[in-house]
Amino acid sequence: MSYRDPSLPIEMRVEALLSQMTLKEKVGQLNQKMYGWDAYKKTNEGIELTEAFKEQVRFGEGMGALYGLFRSDPWSGVTYENGIPTEQNASIANTIQRYVMDHTRLGIPILLSEECPHGHQALDGTMIPTNIGIGSTWNPELMEEAYSYIAAEIRSRGAHLGLISTLDILRDPRWGRSEECYSEDPFLAAEMTKAAVYGLQGKEGKPGKNQIGAVLKHFAAQGAGERGLNAGPVPIGGRELREIHLPGMKAGVEAGALGCMAAYNEIDGIPCHANESLLTGILREEWGFEGIVMADGVANDRLQQLTGSVEKAGALALSAGVDLSLWDVAFTRLSEAVTNGDVKEELIDRAVRRVLRLKFLLGLFEEPFVDESRSKEVVGHSTFKQLNEQVARETIVLLKNEHATLPLAKKTKKIAVIGPNADQIEHQLGDYTSFRRTDKGTTILKGIQKRSAGEVIYSKGCSVRGYSKEGFREAITAAADADVAIVVIGGSSARNVELSFDTNGAAIIDDRRTEMDCGEGVDVADLQLGGVQQELIVELAKTGTPLIAVVIQGRPHALTEIEPYCTAILCGWYPGEEGGTAISEVLFGDVNPSGKLAVSMPRSSAQLPIYYNYKDQGRAPTYLDMEATPLFPFGYGLSYTTFALQQIRVLNPSISLAGLRAGELISIQVDVVNTGLVEGAEVIQLYIKDVEATTTRRIKELKAFKKILLAPQEKKTVTVTLGEEALSIWNKDMTFGPEPGKVNIMVGSESQKTEEVTITILEQ
Amino acid sequence: MSYRDPSLPIEMRVEALLSQMTLKEKVGQLNQKMYGWDAYKKTNEGIELTEAFKEQVRFGEGMGALYGLFRSDPWSGVTYENGIPTEQNASIANTIQRYVMDHTRLGIPILLSEECPHGHQALDGTMIPTNIGIGSTWNPELMEEAYSYIAAEIRSRGAHLGLISTLDILRDPRWGRSEECYSEDPFLAAEMTKAAVYGLQGKEGKPGKNQIGAVLKHFAAQGAGERGLNAGPVPIGGRELREIHLPGMKAGVEAGALGCMAAYNEIDGIPCHANESLLTGILREEWGFEGIVMADGVANDRLQQLTGSVEKAGALALSAGVDLSLWDVAFTRLSEAVTNGDVKEELIDRAVRRVLRLKFLLGLFEEPFVDESRSKEVVGHSTFKQLNEQVARETIVLLKNEHATLPLAKKTKKIAVIGPNADQIEHQLGDYTSFRRTDKGTTILKGIQKRSAGEVIYSKGCSVRGYSKEGFREAITAAADADVAIVVIGGSSARNVELSFDTNGAAIIDDRRTEMDCGEGVDVADLQLGGVQQELIVELAKTGTPLIAVVIQGRPHALTEIEPYCTAILCGWYPGEEGGTAISEVLFGDVNPSGKLAVSMPRSSAQLPIYYNYKDQGRAPTYLDMEATPLFPFGYGLSYTTFALQQIRVLNPSISLAGLRAGELISIQVDVVNTGLVEGAEVIQLYIKDVEATTTRRIKELKAFKKILLAPQEKKTVTVTLGEEALSIWNKDMTFGPEPGKVNIMVGSESQKTEEVTITILEQ
Repeated sequence: MSYRDPSLPIEMRVEALLSQMTLKEKVGQLNQKMYGWDAYKKTNEGIELTEAFKEQVRFGEGMGALYGLFRSDPWSGVTYENGIPTEQNASIANTIQRYVMDHTRLGIPILLSEECPHGHQALDGTMIPTNIGIGSTWNPELMEEAYSYIAAEIRSRGAHLGLISTLDILRDPRWGRSEECYSEDPFLAAEMTKAAVYGLQGKEGKPGKNQIGAVLKHFAAQGAGERGLNAGPVPIGGRELREIHLPGMKAGVEAGALGCMAAYNEIDGIPCHANESLLTGILREEWGFEGIVMADGVANDRLQQLTGSVEKAGALALSAGVDLSLWDVAFTRLSEAVTNGDVKEELIDRAVRRVLRLKFLLGLFEEPFVDESRSKEVVGHSTFKQLNEQVARETIVLLKNEHATLPLAKKTKKIAVIGPNADQIEHQLGDYTSFRRTDKGTTILKGIQKRSAGEVIYSKGCSVRGYSKEGFREAITAAADADVAIVVIGGSSARNVELSFDTNGAAIIDDRRTEMDCGEGVDVADLQLGGVQQELIVELAKTGTPLIAVVIQGRPHALTEIEPYCTAILCGWYPGEEGGTAISEVLFGDVNPSGKLAVSMPRSSAQLPIYYNYKDQGRAPTYLDMEATPLFPFGYGLSYTTFALQQIRVLNPSISLAGLRAGELISIQVDVVNTGLVEGAEVIQLYIKDVEATTTRRIKELKAFKKILLAPQEKKTVTVTLGEEALSIWNKDMTFGPEPGKVNIMVGSESQKTEEVTITILEQ
Repeated sequence: MSYRDPSLPIEMRVEALLSQMTLKEKVGQLNQKMYGWDAYKKTNEGIELTEAFKEQVRFGEGMGALYGLFRSDPWSGVTYENGIPTEQNASIANTIQRYVMDHTRLGIPILLSEECPHGHQALDGTMIPTNIGIGSTWNPELMEEAYSYIAAEIRSRGAHLGLISTLDILRDPRWGRSEECYSEDPFLAAEMTKAAVYGLQGKEGKPGKNQIGAVLKHFAAQGAGERGLNAGPVPIGGRELREIHLPGMKAGVEAGALGCMAAYNEIDGIPCHANESLLTGILREEWGFEGIVMADGVANDRLQQLTGSVEKAGALALSAGVDLSLWDVAFTRLSEAVTNGDVKEELIDRAVRRVLRLKFLLGLFEEPFVDESRSKEVVGHSTFKQLNEQVARETIVLLKNEHATLPLAKKTKKIAVIGPNADQIEHQLGDYTSFRRTDKGTTILKGIQKRSAGEVIYSKGCSVRGYSKEGFREAITAAADADVAIVVIGGSSARNVELSFDTNGAAIIDDRRTEMDCGEGVDVADLQLGGVQQELIVELAKTGTPLIAVVIQGRPHALTEIEPYCTAILCGWYPGEEGGTAISEVLFGDVNPSGKLAVSMPRSSAQLPIYYNYKDQGRAPTYLDMEATPLFPFGYGLSYTTFALQQIRVLNPSISLAGLRAGELISIQVDVVNTGLVEGAEVIQLYIKDVEATTTRRIKELKAFKKILLAPQEKKTVTVTLGEEALSIWNKDMTFGPEPGKVNIMVGSESQKTEEVTITILEQ
């Protein structure tokens, strides 16, 4: 029986191969090594593998995976000057694969993993909006399509796994990785997680030739880090964990995700990398996950805080359920750990089986190499560009529109475009972004210039975080002269080369920075706009020219101070390469905005945390000195048209426990009418509150949504259903299931404006 | 066998009595009824019991307890005008007791419970500093003595139980009940909890004739309410709960506390009043608690959010382990709950046994009445006044003293005393304060006037929260003319009569208020000083006159904006009636300040939470825009002298697990020298960090402290010990015990400046 025989079931091939492996070879498979960009160098003769890489292959007697072969950013140092041209990427992937297979006894192919939190972080990789904007689309179908293009780009270059943030639930927007979160809500995030898995892998649980395996990160609860600090401790209990932080990964498993990455943080005293009940108990035994658990960068080594020795750290992570390392020392010492008695070889085998299974599933034994001609055609394909524009359009949330300021007439005579984010493509892209060709993408200024029939004057005014007001005078003059001023403010995750980075790529804070206020390791305390942006707006308002704020940001800033000065506010998040096109289309009414906030926009850091789904305390939260409500609530977003929701009705207002368990559904219908003059999309949101539950419930929990497009005066009937999972709670004994009693159903087009009907779950 | 026979063991008397009781009589014992001040009225003929009270006794066929007979405040409406004079209090207590015993079949005496979070909340009750100041004394022995006086005052009036906040750990200073917390640290709070129990009850677990039973509140974790909101949900896990929030009650149980009050909040989805694992599992089965669990006001009724019906709510609370109600409807319906089958009578009996046991323990069957002549002598006794002064002295923390601005020379020619807290006795007293005689107590202005040999000019300047600057001009003139300006700022919990209150006494926010910024139900978002206080200080600083800030407050305000303008800063918390004396003594050097912060003082709400004992993440917490450190750290406080800690040594640097379990101790010694010119007290603080533990550890954990007084140049050797409990952790299986490996011991006189030694716990 040969593991090379493709006609055998994968499980048999895995066992056949495993039985031939030495301990050292097994350990090699559990190691994901040195950053890929250090595996090769460019010489006059072409591309050459480095001695360091070859040594690693020899040392490990194979190599399980290689991370970030194509990663381009200030941290990798891979640029257009020193990097491999995109069209040669597949060739280098093949060279590496060939070297590994030729220079190891059993010829086991290597996995190549790449970052793709919002597109492939490689030269020429197409950058879509970051997740915090994706959440605002409320359109998983669109996203599934977008993710399929990302997968195709990555696979065409020869890589196999995409690392993508889908699991982090945004509970504290001070966190610099807010931009990587879809939402503060577990259900919306879980729907997007499914879209990501289906888009990257397809729906067969076995990626095709234009697809890759999804590695969902981070498992679990990283979005609840204390103080909003990156990888901060998470002191929550099991029910909070289950209700808020685990639904995403559960959905990912159900969608067939082939991998996840353990999170840096601890949960109530146990680091995720050492958390057997999480990585094995819940993930595998309860949910049936069969993919791999990847460590986060050097996270296995950090377990030395518990174990003292690095061998014991590796043993602890492996025992808990980590299968594949990420640059750490700990997993390179697993042979020694076995020898020392820190861990049994059976646990090594367990992890090796999972890694090998993944390689067989991906077809790497049959087709280790990739067609070197494809990437040229696939990467940056024009249909992806068009789709990316559509994604960007749907991320945009219209927050305020007094006196119907928007849309602007194209013939508006003179438009001033002001602000640090108006003409900076990097500011639109978010963290985990590759270096760009200077001519690629459309800034907001460029988009406006292209669309306006009048005069457009630009003035930067100030930087994102700097304190210089040198640009104020010019900006004020520009605004004073104009009919309207579009002020493009917010934040930025553009890493710049003067930064240094720690071992997991977090920026080391550098006070010289004047632009970046977000991104991994860039946490802020105060959510107000940075630098002198607020002052700039106050000064501009004094000109009397109407101000339209366009907020480009990776976290929800507290806009309380500037909101009164702006007649209209658009939140564009990080809209990606095509963001300037999308935003200008919205500004001029070529596109009707349809985004809905997937996170609450706070008034101030002082009122954190401020998610909509807080526990019902029987009375509204109240501070003496400030509203306890957000400035703009979850689910909120305006349109250029208006919608009416009519006749919310439950088709079957009661259901039995047995019926629910047997798969029966509650069906809720509502008629939605476009009561305005232009076409527009509306998001129907359904929330529930179990009002007779054995554990306390949240004021509202999103359980279904549907986005529909309506022509003026058009009416559509929307039907949504709720089944056992939606109506289940984690009861006081920590089991999950529906309970008899009444459940309120709230339907609306934003979380704070809903109409209520009640259903009853009957004992029998 | 008669329950009236005092020679029988209490358990037998309880059973004898219980066996004679009807269900209705039993239920009567579980009810703590209507606010006591409504039980009587003053007529021309004297005191008369109300029909409502008599009806309650009849209805309940007895009454377990009566709450707040003497409570005086805007909520009860009991004032000097309409209240019973102190010297007649015992008589009314006796009248009530006599009525209950005479008008019920079995003549079971009633328990009278009173509020005493910082002294008895009754007319003439002596008001000591609130707990947040008590924590700063680091002097449990002193506090034990003070609590014994409080007990004597209450018992002399005829009441039996004192409700006292000792269990709430301050994790979010936005909370209006911050003032009721001893500390953010579980160990310091637990030491103070023991002092409170010993002081109120004595050390025999059976209060003597001048003592009362302690009802410790709130059990558990109320200090971790989300968003700093009162009774906010607490989503923490079991290990965080165990490490931070439970040590106080555990210490209370060990000290023999006869009661505790369940907390309003939920923990991870389970309201404390419904939390059987907390109220029965941990409290009774694990710790062996034999006292009563009292409900918080109407909290049992709030369980209807889970149960639907009020009968089921009572049944749920009773089953979980609540024994005695507080004004709720739910417990009055327990007979119906038994009839309905919602709860078994055995559970009623369980609770009744506990209530009866407490009454027997307190000797109420033998001596139900109190000597009516004693209260006159006991309440407000001069020795308590003197002790209260000493408590106030020790609460004061010197935060800043540039150029040795303090102490002031008494002959300083002209002193301006400015600020909203300079001459407002109510602002010194905290929430849960009775109405005062206008001539009682010493304000800070009065204290300064009494002590100064020069001229003292006073100007209020502004209010605590109002926005009027009308007083600025006068205050600025006063400061400009003076040699030094003492600015008495901060907050206030003085309830004023224009407020309304909800059913549990929380203030309903009233924007007309200009003084109050703290107290139950008065939570703030922004921790900066309220109103125009910061602006006043900036304006005063412009005069060039040195500013000394005295901060009177119930929570740690963020003093970041004013700190640079003040050459010296004293934090006086709410220093009680004698606060003006104590603070003026410190200002003029008659007393050397020795208080040490028991809570971290934040820079801003934006950096919350900010306790010192955060989990070690291997690197310092860092924000891009703000220091992540507090403005003044836990354990910090200056003196007019200086101290040196020398030769920190461990007498036995290793210990075996078996030895620890057998009671062996690690002994650490340090020599402390007063290196300055005046006598002073220093607090030696010992922190640990287990560096080889199976669960993550905090950066530092306080495990021992000692306060010592040293004459100039005097040297003392301080010995502190660590035993099994101090060196134990909650391991990954959630069992508590010491683990083998190294433990770092950090000794210092503030949390951020310590020296380290290491001990080893040996496997054997």
